[in-house]
Amino acid sequence: MKRILLTVVTLGSVLNGGGLATAQAVDPLPSWNDGKARQSIIDFVATVTRPGSPGFVPPAERIATFDNDGTLWAEQPMFFEFLFALDRVKALAPQHPEWKDKEPYASLLKGDVESALAGGESAMLEIIMATHAGMTTDAFEKIVKDWIATAKHPTTKRPYVEMVYQPMLELLGYLRANSFKTFIVSGGGIEFMRAWVERVYGIPPEQVVGSSVRTRYEVRDDKPVLMRLPEVNFINNNDGKPIGIQAQIGRRPIAAFGNSDGDLQMLQWTTAGAGPRFALYVHHTDAEREWAYDRDSSVGCLDKGLDEAQAKGWTVVDMKRDWKVVYPSSKR
Amino acid sequence: MKRILLTVVTLGSVLNGGGLATAQAVDPLPSWNDGKARQSIIDFVATVTRPGSPGFVPPAERIATFDNDGTLWAEQPMFFEFLFALDRVKALAPQHPEWKDKEPYASLLKGDVESALAGGESAMLEIIMATHAGMTTDAFEKIVKDWIATAKHPTTKRPYVEMVYQPMLELLGYLRANSFKTFIVSGGGIEFMRAWVERVYGIPPEQVVGSSVRTRYEVRDDKPVLMRLPEVNFINNNDGKPIGIQAQIGRRPIAAFGNSDGDLQMLQWTTAGAGPRFALYVHHTDAEREWAYDRDSSVGCLDKGLDEAQAKGWTVVDMKRDWKVVYPSSKR
Repeated sequence: MKRILLTVVTLGSVLNGGGLATAQAVDPLPSWNDGKARQSIIDFVATVTRPGSPGFVPPAERIATFDNDGTLWAEQPMFFEFLFALDRVKALAPQHPEWKDKEPYASLLKGDVESALAGGESAMLEIIMATHAGMTTDAFEKIVKDWIATAKHPTTKRPYVEMVYQPMLELLGYLRANSFKTFIVSGGGIEFMRAWVERVYGIPPEQVVGSSVRTRYEVRDDKPVLMRLPEVNFINNNDGKPIGIQAQIGRRPIAAFGNSDGDLQMLQWTTAGAGPRFALYVHHTDAEREWAYDRDSSVGCLDKGLDEAQAKGWTVVDMKRDWKVVYPSSKR
Repeated sequence: MKRILLTVVTLGSVLNGGGLATAQAVDPLPSWNDGKARQSIIDFVATVTRPGSPGFVPPAERIATFDNDGTLWAEQPMFFEFLFALDRVKALAPQHPEWKDKEPYASLLKGDVESALAGGESAMLEIIMATHAGMTTDAFEKIVKDWIATAKHPTTKRPYVEMVYQPMLELLGYLRANSFKTFIVSGGGIEFMRAWVERVYGIPPEQVVGSSVRTRYEVRDDKPVLMRLPEVNFINNNDGKPIGIQAQIGRRPIAAFGNSDGDLQMLQWTTAGAGPRFALYVHHTDAEREWAYDRDSSVGCLDKGLDEAQAKGWTVVDMKRDWKVVYPSSKR
């Protein structure tokens, strides 16, 4: 319905010959302060959408890819998907009496995340697999939907979906209004995201690229199911991002948005194509309204990426200076 | 532009209150003979698009998946992608003097495909890897584009893209005009298809699901590239089709179209969902205009699938009876 109304409005403007004037009368990015970052976005969109201009890009090629954690929603004190996994360990503990004496679960169940993760990557992988595999894809979707509907962030006490960034929601809408196809390209679990991103970001499941476990097709009680296996299929981070983009989208983005070194190869891959290209880093500089972190952070480290952004003239959003609000609830 | 015009027409009809009458005045499937197959398609589309009806499906969920070889274009005497591989072996032979004495290449270069393939699956895999890997994704795209622009089918002498099925082109367009999103879900190589299917079927690269080799991200002369490695990443056939659909689309199709046992799990997966579902097999019954084959064919074998289609009441297209024309060039 919303879509139809939008189309009517757009067509109305076109038919009146007043398309541009009408579009510009409404600020498409009201939560962005005037400044270099905001202007660079608007200039890029104008360049690629102006018919007949040398930078014009046909709508089918207007692919924009967004990292999720730290780019579209917050990621502190740790990735929200990992907080989901911790909640799941607690929920599943009654079915696993052996966890009381087995690491990393024993520490987790005592609330001692730091000791649980002392085992490094293998401890983290074990927790992910224990909570993300061993059920059908349909069952996992329901688990995530139930969690996201009820869980609250440990320090802000907000539902996680209220910790998305209002300026980025506006940016997604602005790009789509200019015939961009918006994709998520995240290191997070692909099915974890698909369970809620359509409702929250307007991004359908087929436009989500992420990390995944292997699945197996089985027929159970005459019904086919896809079982989620406790084996890594693909890690969509760092080098994995251009690989995942090619595998799933099959076309190089013309614009890419990230916040950490894990997004660097995606931004390199995007900007290395011919014609106008756009790369943007969200720099977390706002300890008061969100968090301030970059080069030394264990979550969302932005070090090499910050240097490369400066060297190459990519857009760097100073969250504190460039954003009027951070979360949707604090909109004026 | 086409899209805007279509939208104007649709809106015009809606505003006039004459939407249905206008849409039905033009036959959306002119190359289909009246009959059960054609009617089942039209009934299904009416059911899922009628607002307020119990079978209504919101546009975002109108996912339709199509097999390619034998469903959208011909596949005899062997998969066209394998004919591409044979042409590439010939083209690459001067750079590989050792092939003259090494199977399966030696037989291939003498034109003896049967002996070359005596080595079974491993011989076929070797040929595929020798011709599909060892270059960047950009280089491979160019190789396929050059081939498809010039190569001719061994018996019909037509360009391969003229061996697509006119009735299926109309079906793709009809579904899209009813807000379906059309995907290819094929055992063929994903990048082999992406090089030409947008132009031929109107299906963009991000809506192609297929088999793939692994790729590696490298920076060469300061430019990032994706190298195609001679290793299988994923085989998108049989059980692989539902797995590939979930991985890339993330939503169960409501309609699926195939022609062989390799599509059976895709049709099972599609029809096992709730609400109205549609499954269709193209049955190759027309030895005169195309080829006639099913249960005993080494290419596109349709045996279990034909039994299951009959048992479950899926639509089976009798190519000879149901299609007025086969290829676009024979349109009246």
